[in-house]
Amino acid sequence: MAIIVYNYLTRRKEEFKPIHEGYVGIYVCGPTIYDHAHIGHAKAYVSFDTIVRYLRFRGYQVRYVQNITDVGHLTDDADEGEDKIVKRAQKDRVEPMELVETYMRSYFEDMDALNVVRPNISPRPSCHITEQIGLIELLLERGHAYEVNGSVYFDVSSWPEYGKLSGRRLEEQEEGVRVAINPEKKHPADFALWKRAERGHLLRWPSPWGWGYPGWHIECSVMATKYLGQPFDIHGGGLENIFPHNECEIAQIEAATGKPFCNYWLLNNMVTVNGVKMGKSLGNAIPIKEMLTRYRPMTLRFFILSSHYRSPTDFSEAALDAADRGLERLTSAVSLVRARLQTAPDGDLDAEWAARLEDYRARFVEAMDDDFNTPRAIAALFDLSREVNALLNSGQPVSRATLEAIHDLYQSLGGQALGLIFDEPVRGDLVSSRDTLVDGLMRILIDLRHQARQARDWAAADAIRDRLAELGIVLEDGPEGTRWRPSR
Amino acid sequence: MAIIVYNYLTRRKEEFKPIHEGYVGIYVCGPTIYDHAHIGHAKAYVSFDTIVRYLRFRGYQVRYVQNITDVGHLTDDADEGEDKIVKRAQKDRVEPMELVETYMRSYFEDMDALNVVRPNISPRPSCHITEQIGLIELLLERGHAYEVNGSVYFDVSSWPEYGKLSGRRLEEQEEGVRVAINPEKKHPADFALWKRAERGHLLRWPSPWGWGYPGWHIECSVMATKYLGQPFDIHGGGLENIFPHNECEIAQIEAATGKPFCNYWLLNNMVTVNGVKMGKSLGNAIPIKEMLTRYRPMTLRFFILSSHYRSPTDFSEAALDAADRGLERLTSAVSLVRARLQTAPDGDLDAEWAARLEDYRARFVEAMDDDFNTPRAIAALFDLSREVNALLNSGQPVSRATLEAIHDLYQSLGGQALGLIFDEPVRGDLVSSRDTLVDGLMRILIDLRHQARQARDWAAADAIRDRLAELGIVLEDGPEGTRWRPSR
Repeated sequence: MAIIVYNYLTRRKEEFKPIHEGYVGIYVCGPTIYDHAHIGHAKAYVSFDTIVRYLRFRGYQVRYVQNITDVGHLTDDADEGEDKIVKRAQKDRVEPMELVETYMRSYFEDMDALNVVRPNISPRPSCHITEQIGLIELLLERGHAYEVNGSVYFDVSSWPEYGKLSGRRLEEQEEGVRVAINPEKKHPADFALWKRAERGHLLRWPSPWGWGYPGWHIECSVMATKYLGQPFDIHGGGLENIFPHNECEIAQIEAATGKPFCNYWLLNNMVTVNGVKMGKSLGNAIPIKEMLTRYRPMTLRFFILSSHYRSPTDFSEAALDAADRGLERLTSAVSLVRARLQTAPDGDLDAEWAARLEDYRARFVEAMDDDFNTPRAIAALFDLSREVNALLNSGQPVSRATLEAIHDLYQSLGGQALGLIFDEPVRGDLVSSRDTLVDGLMRILIDLRHQARQARDWAAADAIRDRLAELGIVLEDGPEGTRWRPSR
Repeated sequence: MAIIVYNYLTRRKEEFKPIHEGYVGIYVCGPTIYDHAHIGHAKAYVSFDTIVRYLRFRGYQVRYVQNITDVGHLTDDADEGEDKIVKRAQKDRVEPMELVETYMRSYFEDMDALNVVRPNISPRPSCHITEQIGLIELLLERGHAYEVNGSVYFDVSSWPEYGKLSGRRLEEQEEGVRVAINPEKKHPADFALWKRAERGHLLRWPSPWGWGYPGWHIECSVMATKYLGQPFDIHGGGLENIFPHNECEIAQIEAATGKPFCNYWLLNNMVTVNGVKMGKSLGNAIPIKEMLTRYRPMTLRFFILSSHYRSPTDFSEAALDAADRGLERLTSAVSLVRARLQTAPDGDLDAEWAARLEDYRARFVEAMDDDFNTPRAIAALFDLSREVNALLNSGQPVSRATLEAIHDLYQSLGGQALGLIFDEPVRGDLVSSRDTLVDGLMRILIDLRHQARQARDWAAADAIRDRLAELGIVLEDGPEGTRWRPSR
């Protein structure tokens, strides 16, 4: 069976065929690093993480490249205004690259918390000045660019395909252009490849056109093809950047080389708050770090995956609370299986369950093969959990082999592919396995409380609960035993 | 009082005077990233972390720049052989920048574990190709370099000061040169600024001299001055790289600009195993990650700080075990103070103790002011701990204010300056405070065991100890109560 993806280049669902059998090269537009990441970033990078995870789950060897923009992204998201990083660095009175280090670290902390696997390469435009100048020189040579006063612009009228991704015709584009048109441009839709920078500008490099810095779009054309070749398989990004950013990426590299840039464009939809797009510059962005003081990281990941990546995700407390309960349904079934495994009798894998698990795997794969339909994939896991709960509460003995098969399926689908379910905690050293240790300590404490209750020593049982509450941990007693979670 | 540093440029101790009152710019040669970091790296970067911490403790605002070498470091540590990163990337069949991402992440993980504060900027030579080409062009222009077949060499005979840091005269240098002298060099001591790279070489960029890559030394000259100005205050590194690496750094930038590079050269000595230098290429390097499965990170940090940074550190199990006991002496005194603070009576700060603490602070500062003499500084903390233990075991009441003053001094000297003692655990959220949570859970478990013992329920007490042992935690009962530590 093939994976079907919605390709924004053709505006239809297509069978995914990699350029090299068994390998996938994917480039995703990364964040511009000048502040902490917000929920909009979480949606984008959890979505593409899940796509990468699923491609690996399906046996592909994936090279995942995601840039970190550290220069050239101007405050108006086009060619005018200040560099976002320079502006913030001046405000904070730090060297721009110091600002970038700080927020790059913060970004990866957040992504690690959300169980987002690191990209194989995280290139930065300030690290590819030579390569960007090289591509601009090629564009000048081939007549697709022109230099004015030390800045270089792409000549959109020289490349008839301009607009092919976003579907905007040149005439339409003019209408959207801001009132103050840069007089250096021959055509209002022309865009900057290189911008002149005066002495004193904090981020500038020498070039054949004098001191300056690259335009925002050129980095992606350069870094994607440098690390993935041309054409490569998949370009990911956010739908809000389809124009001008993604459109310009294509124009730059295809006009210069005469070869296609990439085969599939996958774009995620936005996060909204009461229907309004969430964004840093819109003033309604909720930092991931703030969210994580109130919700478990996996709740946020579950929330994101419970809608499709191409649909908008509307943020609300109620939706997050619902996600928390949904995640709990999944993880409690997994915990129950794990608990039963401790005392399971030996025995063969139940044939009926073997077939049932195969059906669930097929249903999950079918959902994910259909343009990575995570809500449908999660629904399959919910149905599985309902059956698992019924089995385990039926009072019938369940063999170790059957329980292991169920557990493996959860690990494979919910863990490896969706990144929602963690491996069974195993004994580990303190350095690398804090989570495992916390889990182990909690199991001892829950058992001690259980013993106290069985001995009707209510005071002792309550004391344990109260001291855990002081540490911010809530115990929840249920039919399947006691579970714990951080209090909000 | 002034800080005195041993300056390798003058080979004597000098008073440290920053260029800009209140500010310090420090550049430290970072690791070449092609494998996991080893104990030699731990010594270098814990040493300079402590120097940076101490400068901040003394009120300086420090900008700490430490590079990550990702291109140009060849296997013979000079101009010949393969690029270490390219070689390893080919072996692992990955893109060189993918290899760099992997090991850069591993490096920072290790540094985080060792409580090494991140540098403000961690620049990479592959990100400063333009700047390196710029400096080479300047050297060519000024007659200090020559181009041969697409490679550019520094002409050591054009710059009479060459050798001033390492103290090697040019004639001596010739003796050390390998038999096979590169025929492109005019003088055997000339060194590569830019190396020609044929098609197929995995790390290469266009330059005025054709495709190639920068020599190993040029990156440090360029990145130090880019982010710190010229001259800047302190250049740090490892004594084993004083020649040719540091010597070449000076030559490149000073010959090109006619200005001094930096004012103070601070170089750390090596780690030895049975008297032999530890090094990746020497085959006796112990990875930090391996060490941390056997010792607590702070034991390793303590081990490093218990010898002076300019002395060799001889590695042995016995020395690590001794460091573990030493660290324990310090932290147990701190724990005792914290425990007593819970029940301390109100009252004024004891005048005698106030004076005593001032004396200890002065002794500590005097030791650290003397070229960052951490062994003497730690000795002062040991003496303090002996007096603190005597006070707390004397049976006399100790006021809260006195205990707080003692605690603050430990935090300030052992914590802020040496990075060995962590802040008092406070209630925190689960995401960011795993250690705090583990600490809190352990306190509950130790108390429950204590209650069981008081009730003479030995079975219950032993059960708690045994279950903790299963998790890899050892309880140690002592006169000051029960402490816990990871088992080896």
